[in-house]
Amino acid sequence: MHSVTCQLSVSLDGFIAGPNQSLENPLGEGGMRLHEWAFSNASWRAQHGLDGGERNADSEVIEEATQGVGAYLMGRKMFGGGDGPWDENWTGWWGDEPPYHAPAFVLSRHPREPLRLQGTTFTFVNDGIHSALEQARAAAGDQDVAIAGGAKTVQQYLAAGLLDELHLHVVPVLLGSGERLLVDAGNPMLQPVQVVAAPTVTHLKYRVLH
Amino acid sequence: MHSVTCQLSVSLDGFIAGPNQSLENPLGEGGMRLHEWAFSNASWRAQHGLDGGERNADSEVIEEATQGVGAYLMGRKMFGGGDGPWDENWTGWWGDEPPYHAPAFVLSRHPREPLRLQGTTFTFVNDGIHSALEQARAAAGDQDVAIAGGAKTVQQYLAAGLLDELHLHVVPVLLGSGERLLVDAGNPMLQPVQVVAAPTVTHLKYRVLH
Repeated sequence: MHSVTCQLSVSLDGFIAGPNQSLENPLGEGGMRLHEWAFSNASWRAQHGLDGGERNADSEVIEEATQGVGAYLMGRKMFGGGDGPWDENWTGWWGDEPPYHAPAFVLSRHPREPLRLQGTTFTFVNDGIHSALEQARAAAGDQDVAIAGGAKTVQQYLAAGLLDELHLHVVPVLLGSGERLLVDAGNPMLQPVQVVAAPTVTHLKYRVLH
Repeated sequence: MHSVTCQLSVSLDGFIAGPNQSLENPLGEGGMRLHEWAFSNASWRAQHGLDGGERNADSEVIEEATQGVGAYLMGRKMFGGGDGPWDENWTGWWGDEPPYHAPAFVLSRHPREPLRLQGTTFTFVNDGIHSALEQARAAAGDQDVAIAGGAKTVQQYLAAGLLDELHLHVVPVLLGSGERLLVDAGNPMLQPVQVVAAPTVTHLKYRVLH
């Protein structure tokens, strides 16, 4: 059966982005350190049309992360473009070729027409997390729905008991402050189902017991 | 060479004790959930003179945690007895047979004569973390010094660059609030050196690079 999954890089002290996030630095100060393990990996690079990089235990984790994903779900902040009504010129952080190769649904208080880009269409959902998940499930068919972030969106789905799998890539850095992942996330029952010890990062996959 | 080590059970959201810690409930609300994996294990039970319990991947971790420890270091809160001048009747949380089988040093602003109990002597150190570590090292000889907690003590040694090894037993529960381990701990360089995936807990050992 398809699952609602979420995989994120997180600092050992629990942040998925550093302090002082901005348009110029959406990952916040030090936030890039959470992603170096992926950016330097051959699998990630190949997925993004780049040569080179290392192959190690991270590679399979990276490959698995995009397999079987039939739709993505994300918060407004993850898609970017500020808090107010949409600027129609804003097409996400990623340029013309976003890294989502499946339909994507963006939670937003403000209406906007669907945005078709290469490999994906972003659909903007104004009527809450349940509606967004329903639409994403329908789009995903028998594949998984992946919650792409940010923290607040993951928290909402986790607290509502709608997340099935949480896959954390634990990076041994301390960011000290920033966007904290696991707050206001309720009291889920989590069961470790897979642990991968890569050279610099530890991948912990949990099933959420319902 | 001997190391300065620390091993602690921590919730997935980063707490080593739950909210509302008190004399009656020093682990705080939900804090006991962080230790059930150990309390139900045959190795922990044998160390504490109890029968029964399971043997699994946790058992070796528990056995390793007490091997080679020549002295313990802890904060005042970990030893208990309030914040003010010592009540000489307070002999720690553990009764007559504390679980420390080596000399133990307690950071405290208030002077107190050494306290001899079965298997250990608690020495109270009033002149700071460096002095306490020096005394613990001298007592440990060529064995390790283990920082027993609490969070603030670990943070001080980590931030001062005096910790060599951090061993976290990551328990998949969210406590939501309480005593957070990794705050004000500086920006240490951590290298994963061992990962043990037990049925319910994941043990992550990091070396601190100096």
